[in-house]
Amino acid sequence: MSYDVLVIGSGPGGYVAAIRASQLGFKVGVVEKENIGGVCLNWGCIPTKSLLKSMQAFEYAKHAADYGVSISGEVKADFGAMVKRSRDVAGGMSKGVQFLFKKNKIEVINGYGRLKDKGTVEVEDEKGKKTTVSAKHIILATGARSRQLPNLEQDGKKIIGYREAMTLDKQPKSMVVVGSGAIGSEFANFYHAIGTEVTLVEYMPTLVPNEDEEVAKTLERSFKKDKMKIMTNASVESVDTKGKLCKVVVKTKKGEETLEAEIVLSAVGIAPNIENIGLEDLGIELENGKIKVDDFYRTNVEGVYAIGDIVHGPALAHVASAEGITCVEKIAGKNPDPVDYGNIPGCTYTSPEVSSVGMTEKKAKEAGYEIKVGKFPYSASGKASAAGQKDGFVKLIFDAKYGELLGAHMIGGNVTEMIAELVVAKKLEITGHELIKSIHPHPTMSEAIMEAAAAAYDEVIHL
Amino acid sequence: MSYDVLVIGSGPGGYVAAIRASQLGFKVGVVEKENIGGVCLNWGCIPTKSLLKSMQAFEYAKHAADYGVSISGEVKADFGAMVKRSRDVAGGMSKGVQFLFKKNKIEVINGYGRLKDKGTVEVEDEKGKKTTVSAKHIILATGARSRQLPNLEQDGKKIIGYREAMTLDKQPKSMVVVGSGAIGSEFANFYHAIGTEVTLVEYMPTLVPNEDEEVAKTLERSFKKDKMKIMTNASVESVDTKGKLCKVVVKTKKGEETLEAEIVLSAVGIAPNIENIGLEDLGIELENGKIKVDDFYRTNVEGVYAIGDIVHGPALAHVASAEGITCVEKIAGKNPDPVDYGNIPGCTYTSPEVSSVGMTEKKAKEAGYEIKVGKFPYSASGKASAAGQKDGFVKLIFDAKYGELLGAHMIGGNVTEMIAELVVAKKLEITGHELIKSIHPHPTMSEAIMEAAAAAYDEVIHL
Repeated sequence: MSYDVLVIGSGPGGYVAAIRASQLGFKVGVVEKENIGGVCLNWGCIPTKSLLKSMQAFEYAKHAADYGVSISGEVKADFGAMVKRSRDVAGGMSKGVQFLFKKNKIEVINGYGRLKDKGTVEVEDEKGKKTTVSAKHIILATGARSRQLPNLEQDGKKIIGYREAMTLDKQPKSMVVVGSGAIGSEFANFYHAIGTEVTLVEYMPTLVPNEDEEVAKTLERSFKKDKMKIMTNASVESVDTKGKLCKVVVKTKKGEETLEAEIVLSAVGIAPNIENIGLEDLGIELENGKIKVDDFYRTNVEGVYAIGDIVHGPALAHVASAEGITCVEKIAGKNPDPVDYGNIPGCTYTSPEVSSVGMTEKKAKEAGYEIKVGKFPYSASGKASAAGQKDGFVKLIFDAKYGELLGAHMIGGNVTEMIAELVVAKKLEITGHELIKSIHPHPTMSEAIMEAAAAAYDEVIHL
Repeated sequence: MSYDVLVIGSGPGGYVAAIRASQLGFKVGVVEKENIGGVCLNWGCIPTKSLLKSMQAFEYAKHAADYGVSISGEVKADFGAMVKRSRDVAGGMSKGVQFLFKKNKIEVINGYGRLKDKGTVEVEDEKGKKTTVSAKHIILATGARSRQLPNLEQDGKKIIGYREAMTLDKQPKSMVVVGSGAIGSEFANFYHAIGTEVTLVEYMPTLVPNEDEEVAKTLERSFKKDKMKIMTNASVESVDTKGKLCKVVVKTKKGEETLEAEIVLSAVGIAPNIENIGLEDLGIELENGKIKVDDFYRTNVEGVYAIGDIVHGPALAHVASAEGITCVEKIAGKNPDPVDYGNIPGCTYTSPEVSSVGMTEKKAKEAGYEIKVGKFPYSASGKASAAGQKDGFVKLIFDAKYGELLGAHMIGGNVTEMIAELVVAKKLEITGHELIKSIHPHPTMSEAIMEAAAAAYDEVIHL
């Protein structure tokens, strides 16, 4: 078999690169060892959002009376049905990508891909049968896996990763979630909301440690209001899985505490899949434990490219997709701009939702900017009131000198949808006053963005 | 009493103008004959959004099993509780504006305001007592009321307007809604969803007649799927309210049909409140039945201004607010840009939601543009699938020559929040490729915007 472009891995980096390559006239093949769509479609973004939607429906039903809906009987989370729905949604999405592959005449080679030589990949199928595939351009898009910590080694039964967390046989009564990034916080939120007793343990001083501090504090307050146990500045020293319940020793400034829980979920980050894919044989250079690439994802070996979680930059589906498109457009001789890593949105789909783009106040100051900060609380938003979602705020950071938007940090209902506006605004180098003068529809949560900009310039109306 | 700026009417035009004027250092008074906040806060945007939120909660509870939530008993819409919640939300918002008035040292003069002279307004209170108030600048912001049609005269009992529609004593078993603009469609949707048998009658060929045709057809299909009766190209010839049920004679191309319903809701538009406010005495000029103003809302009489529903432009809360701010900033000697009426978003908060900004395909062609149109369906969106909201699409219209965004038309979950992105994009004259290259977070509905732009340029990935 021979291709113009061969992609190893069919996640949101790989499959998007493959489709774009096909659009640009290349003959394209994709090597996939497991599910088409990769982790994102099958074990990440999509199925978790399905579970969180189930949580939302459960919350609506539980609090129905607040909205004038009367329910005579009992409201229960049917964990099995929630998981089944989530698997069905993931399955549907994976079929969708298979359909797109067919439509774009992209061939799938099932098996484990390994670089053999410049222009050659060896694919080993389930039975161990090896096939050699050649291609002018080889794009590595092998993604990442759940990171293993020595004190928290996953056994897949009692100490689990994100995969097991979304397909457990039954709902655990209690769970310790270690790590409060997007994955950890979302699972903690989901399980706690449907009735599991959750303790969320974070090594750093705040939850979602990559986010704005005030956002993090607001999320913590919200979780605590729902009686979730939160431990920050806390490290897991050991887990004893011998008994019926796991014994988790957590160290904080106050000393050591032993938690008991049915399940421990390790959500302490991810590790890139760069082992055993032939990097060493070809002498492909690494940098900080990831594959070294230039602005167009070219490795030091001609004809070999790398995108997604295995290269620098945030390990996010939309980043991998953008990298894939940029990589392939450059191969096609187009003139794409490099990905602007200063304008990548990040979302955590908890309740309340969290989203951000660009610099935090702290980072902007560290970068030497004099800044103007505007904040608008959801408690002053008419739409948030009508929706019963008064927790949250929008915070915008502007360069004081030229008025340019530097960063946006939001928590509350709908903010994962609202952040795209700030990405576009930032791309076009919007100033504070241009944002204030963009007429936002009333009543929407999005008005809070306009008002936050106005707050930065002492022109806010509803505060 | 004497003010720098006196505003007649405290709706979203008037109260926002008053607050901005106070910020700019003026001594400000507001004349209000009824509720602070005007129709929008008390009888419009906010309480209807509260009712629609109740509808949403009811829908979640009713379809709980789809999300893996089991409910043993019966789910019922408690109409009285829904109305009460809505009134409470509206009351809270009105109190919020009263608080803002106090904070900004804005004085409220309760009563009916009437221009007496240049610089003088007579305010008549409930008891008929008249006070004369003087001001250097008088801003008319008297808003609008439900329009009366001869064949459909509102009696407030059986033939009602939007006010009565949100405070009925009990839920009617049947209702004919006449007019399918935002107000009519939202009430039809709400009442039908909670169990009232609704017929929606529209004079024009499609529902929401100001929106894109395909959007309108999709909304119609969605309403019909829920078994709402829809009559388009239909006019109400007469209503007989003598019996227990109203007899509504509706004429279509097929002939006349008589509908029976407990309540008829007239939602055939609004009429500006320009009578009996002293326009004639001062010789203030009208134009097309509204007050004639220049780019900064100055009437032909010096020192008298008009904003909101009583001047040209769409009768929307956010437009009135923008006009009020622009008007006041100009009075203060600032140099505001005139409001760009080509970049005003419009939203209908039905389920599915509808939103738009800028030109439709038809209007763009009429204006002489050669266009590129890109469309992306929610059925291909991962987030929409996970959310169980696969109905809807995003349609974007670009100028073929320069690539500039001309219009956006959307239907589906979250589109009323998503439209702000296109407002900002349009303000900054974004091109199709700039939008394609703005990295939208995955998984969100907002990705559909990026994909629709890509579709216009044959670069769409997920289709």
